[in-house]
Amino acid sequence: MKAVIPFKKENAKSRLSPILSSSERETFALYMLKDVIGQINNELIDSIDILTTSIQSASLCEKINSTLNIILSEDSLNDALNEYLSKVKEPVLIVMADLPLINKKHIKEIINLNLINNADIVIAPGKGGGTNILFIKDPSKFQVDYYGASFLDHLKIANKYGHKVEIYDSFLVSNDIDEPSDLIELLIHGKGESAHWIKKIGLTLIVNKNKEVKLVRIE
Amino acid sequence: MKAVIPFKKENAKSRLSPILSSSERETFALYMLKDVIGQINNELIDSIDILTTSIQSASLCEKINSTLNIILSEDSLNDALNEYLSKVKEPVLIVMADLPLINKKHIKEIINLNLINNADIVIAPGKGGGTNILFIKDPSKFQVDYYGASFLDHLKIANKYGHKVEIYDSFLVSNDIDEPSDLIELLIHGKGESAHWIKKIGLTLIVNKNKEVKLVRIE
Repeated sequence: MKAVIPFKKENAKSRLSPILSSSERETFALYMLKDVIGQINNELIDSIDILTTSIQSASLCEKINSTLNIILSEDSLNDALNEYLSKVKEPVLIVMADLPLINKKHIKEIINLNLINNADIVIAPGKGGGTNILFIKDPSKFQVDYYGASFLDHLKIANKYGHKVEIYDSFLVSNDIDEPSDLIELLIHGKGESAHWIKKIGLTLIVNKNKEVKLVRIE
Repeated sequence: MKAVIPFKKENAKSRLSPILSSSERETFALYMLKDVIGQINNELIDSIDILTTSIQSASLCEKINSTLNIILSEDSLNDALNEYLSKVKEPVLIVMADLPLINKKHIKEIINLNLINNADIVIAPGKGGGTNILFIKDPSKFQVDYYGASFLDHLKIANKYGHKVEIYDSFLVSNDIDEPSDLIELLIHGKGESAHWIKKIGLTLIVNKNKEVKLVRIE
């Protein structure tokens, strides 16, 4: 089984710009990628491929981990992934790069939904209709359609092929980091390098007088 | 084992006022409560108590399900729950009333973390630092502290007593419904009466040209 992580350094995580500078967002995106790779490493995964758009991103990925396979593509996310799937002859796990709360147990349980429960497709939903981890048993019989309500779109595509689908229900996997408020979850539940780094640069939580949890940056 | 659900009809779900009228919010809160009660009903739960602040709310709860025990208290949520816990002599499951995505499997798995894994306390986190479901084996050795980052506060209280804690990791349980954007999750993942009702009154999803999922109301 292969795992593939799409990754883009350029203008990474632009919706975090109210709280992180451009270079900080790039650093943070790399820490998240590092956390994700660390948790995917598993005896059931034969190789980890990074699908990336530029040579600069590729060389950064190689610095993180020299055993990664870097695949360069200038196509859009969906086109690049569908091109990738069309060439692969074994099961594939597609993992987004901005999931710093995932752990080894999640990956094992998702794979077990195939090994034990015979799922052809496993979808771990992201908040807001997204798809955060996607297991595909036979890549020749599936196409991805990320963005928008991709969770519903992936269900439809799976049904079109008559695939057996399992939904993997995890709060920690559902938290892709896009907006400043998502960092609240990382500060509360995070244990990896990206959580450590955002604390180090001064991001912290306060509880305001309405007893709401807010994110602040202490310089 | 007892289950207890705090419920307030008056000015229920005020943060949904941009999209639902006051009477709609009350109706919606009751549908959510009904969904929650339907999923808690379980051979391991001996009784379901509804902790509520007014006779009007109490009579509505009785209409939903005549086998519920209604407990009236004018105290704040924390004071009312801690008073309740001080009198109970058996394990307690505290379930918030605004969790329309929970199902019977969640309740069973949370209880099994006690029965099989010997947890004294099980916390199912809500988004933003909240606590959505809380299992307490020995109510004489715990106090609740809801609002703010209650997930962290409950961890601290459990540690103070030396309790064994398990975290129950579920995306569906983490989605308490407070704000309009939370209804996106209910429209995508909901299967109960509250999901049916919000569709019936015209709430639906659109994917805008930036490929973001948005909630709209069609009159």
